[in-house]
Amino acid sequence: MALIRSVFQDELDNVSQSLVDLTAMVATSMQNATTSILTSDLKLAEEVIASDEKIDEIQHDSDSRVIDIIARQQPVASDLRALVTALRIGSDLERMGDLAHHVAKIARLRHPNAAIPAELVEIVHAMGDAAVRITQKTGVVIATRDTEMALEVERDDDEMDALHRKLISALIEPTWKYGIETAIDLTLLGRYYERYADHAVSVSRRVYFLVTGKFAS
Amino acid sequence: MALIRSVFQDELDNVSQSLVDLTAMVATSMQNATTSILTSDLKLAEEVIASDEKIDEIQHDSDSRVIDIIARQQPVASDLRALVTALRIGSDLERMGDLAHHVAKIARLRHPNAAIPAELVEIVHAMGDAAVRITQKTGVVIATRDTEMALEVERDDDEMDALHRKLISALIEPTWKYGIETAIDLTLLGRYYERYADHAVSVSRRVYFLVTGKFAS
Repeated sequence: MALIRSVFQDELDNVSQSLVDLTAMVATSMQNATTSILTSDLKLAEEVIASDEKIDEIQHDSDSRVIDIIARQQPVASDLRALVTALRIGSDLERMGDLAHHVAKIARLRHPNAAIPAELVEIVHAMGDAAVRITQKTGVVIATRDTEMALEVERDDDEMDALHRKLISALIEPTWKYGIETAIDLTLLGRYYERYADHAVSVSRRVYFLVTGKFAS
Repeated sequence: MALIRSVFQDELDNVSQSLVDLTAMVATSMQNATTSILTSDLKLAEEVIASDEKIDEIQHDSDSRVIDIIARQQPVASDLRALVTALRIGSDLERMGDLAHHVAKIARLRHPNAAIPAELVEIVHAMGDAAVRITQKTGVVIATRDTEMALEVERDDDEMDALHRKLISALIEPTWKYGIETAIDLTLLGRYYERYADHAVSVSRRVYFLVTGKFAS
């Protein structure tokens, strides 16, 4: 019995490790997507776009493994909740990969032109950095179940929201001179970064709930 | 044993029925959100915004019930897959509710002004209709597991994508005269309808995969 329990525990740890690995992958994707759009780097944009399939595949494998564990081990209570949470976290991370992919697609669409006007580079750069920082922290939250850090992720997201508002404010300034198409690109970009961070928050909240049984407020 | 099996089957049917009910709710939400934005109806927009909480609550209850069934019945193979699929469908539907809520929030933000210029009313109206039609069909797919209809939902989504492209084209016409703010609103609106339909497609694909073991292509 102790042995079976230990095998099960190993399986849970493996699932958790896959999710941590996925977190690192989607952080790298968003990092590269941001660089590709800020530097009009087509090769890097293509890399991000291609890597999304790999992320989807890993998430899909991780999901299958989780379902297989549920079927074989028939866990109840907290173990079952942890496995269901793993499925949900996988789905958030997969979506974060999609959003990095969307950013890279705008870089590709506008190449060889710059998608971002010079005076907005700083904001987009900051949104990219915030996205990566939040995701790295989220990886630590998954690995350690640190509830304090889960709450920190919420605060980091407030910073992303502030950057997002700043970006939209710049677009609606009467002095805006880059036309509608660029404004549309930046509206969508802003949305992608914001949603990306939202999913990281969602992951952290799921871990918080799993550990404490309470919703992070 | 036959009795236990039958109780389990009843439980699965109840889960499925909750999801069908949720589908009807998010269709109504998007219908009302569209009407509220096309007619600048603040009261209706507020209704949609308030109903989102109800949708979240129902989805949350449905999820808890599914997890409870897994814990008690310890299903394997296709029954387990059906329950995991139910969790995923619930999460898609919950997100569709959020997106209807986002549409209503733009209506509220711009009230008493019209958010949509007269010449774009027709496209937004068509996107709203397409969203509702896709969702209703998706409800039937959940209820009947009709794989032909699941494929139809994919085709209906192509129509939504075409409308979305038409909307964006209108924004980047050199003759566009409604300014950046309206273009931003419409960019986001277009995105909300598109994502809403994507989630309906995702639900239909999940049912298709559950029934056939193959991905809908």
